[in-house]
Amino acid sequence: MPLINVKMTHEDGGATKEQKEALSKGITELFASIFDGRGAKSAVVIIEEVNMDNYAIGGKTVSQIREEAK
Amino acid sequence: MPLINVKMTHEDGGATKEQKEALSKGITELFASIFDGRGAKSAVVIIEEVNMDNYAIGGKTVSQIREEAK
Amino acid sequence: MPLINVKMTHEDGGATKEQKEALSKGITELFASIFDGRGAKSAVVIIEEVNMDNYAIGGKTVSQIREEAK
Amino acid sequence: MPLINVKMTHEDGGATKEQKEALSKGITELFASIFDGRGAKSAVVIIEEVNMDNYAIGGKTVSQIREEAK
Amino acid sequence: MPLINVKMTHEDGGATKEQKEALSKGITELFASIFDGRGAKSAVVIIEEVNMDNYAIGGKTVSQIREEAK
Amino acid sequence: MPLINVKMTHEDGGATKEQKEALSKGITELFASIFDGRGAKSAVVIIEEVNMDNYAIGGKTVSQIREEAK
Repeated sequence: MPLINVKMTHEDGGATKEQKEALSKGITELFASIFDGRGAKSAVVIIEEVNMDNYAIGGKTVSQIREEAK
Repeated sequence: MPLINVKMTHEDGGATKEQKEALSKGITELFASIFDGRGAKSAVVIIEEVNMDNYAIGGKTVSQIREEAK
Repeated sequence: MPLINVKMTHEDGGATKEQKEALSKGITELFASIFDGRGAKSAVVIIEEVNMDNYAIGGKTVSQIREEAK
Repeated sequence: MPLINVKMTHEDGGATKEQKEALSKGITELFASIFDGRGAKSAVVIIEEVNMDNYAIGGKTVSQIREEAK
Repeated sequence: MPLINVKMTHEDGGATKEQKEALSKGITELFASIFDGRGAKSAVVIIEEVNMDNYAIGGKTVSQIREEAK
Repeated sequence: MPLINVKMTHEDGGATKEQKEALSKGITELFASIFDGRGAKSAVVIIEEVNMDNYAIGGKTVSQIREEAK
């Protein structure tokens, strides 16, 4: 029974319901295919979207990085 | 000084303030009772409620599961 | 289906198997009692024990704190 | 740049190097395919294997569950 | 490529954009200075602010603690 | 009372005790300096070192990346 946690920045309105469903389904199937069926019915996938002001790479928030890239 | 993190789906308006207080208090007392008083004054309990679209079990989001159960 | 993660320092040989069982069982029952039975059969409790060199409070590792307390 | 964290019980000698590589590669490709290429070169996947004594479902550790299933 | 996750209570309107930027930049520089430059361009810092009702210390939520301190 | 979690690959024998102490102390002081003294005595810093086989970037484990770089 694996637990999978995904953290990603919340961009452009955020991940859609369809994208979240596809990601949850895909990760679960992938895991089960690699580990002899483990988790097919029980894997937990949690997706957390993080504000771009609260997510930094290399010392700059993603908001700063986006701003500079304009 | 234990740290306890609780993740749960946000359903029906979410956990009430009273439920969160009871859970925090209860876990802290339980921990202290098992580990000779450790954490009684310092245990940290964080409760995170996750949107049902962002929480999947067995490859389906809880939103999907609830929808199918109707 | 709540997920509960417990982080604690690994001290004096670590938590015993009995303590871990009691903690897992207790938290699950507590959660179910507060939230109308939710999680009674499905709550996941993960206990992580962290080396005292890798766990700091107020800027000092627990190893340092223990050493100073001698 | 998504961060994906996988927690699973350490069973039968643990996940092999090949399984971990396949899981990391597969999740990254899946994510990128769903989110327009995001993360293809930067997604971070961390796999944590947890001792069966430290991982409980429905109030019983996986060690207990395995023991009872014998 | 270190990942740093900061959880803090959301108080008084929350951390400002400037505080988040300073924290992300400072932690990244600190890490790189201690570990021979590692992470200078790649460290990820995620800041999560948690509602005071959902964050407890010693069995009381921060909301309760603040209330009692009035 | 902030909680800071650091995940990094375990390389070359791992972070030394001195590096961990410096990192814990530094992050705590930095946090307190940005947030008006908050956490100076109570911030928790946990450092987790992850095996290079269990940590992947862009779909390759750090072990693979190191091997290819030879």
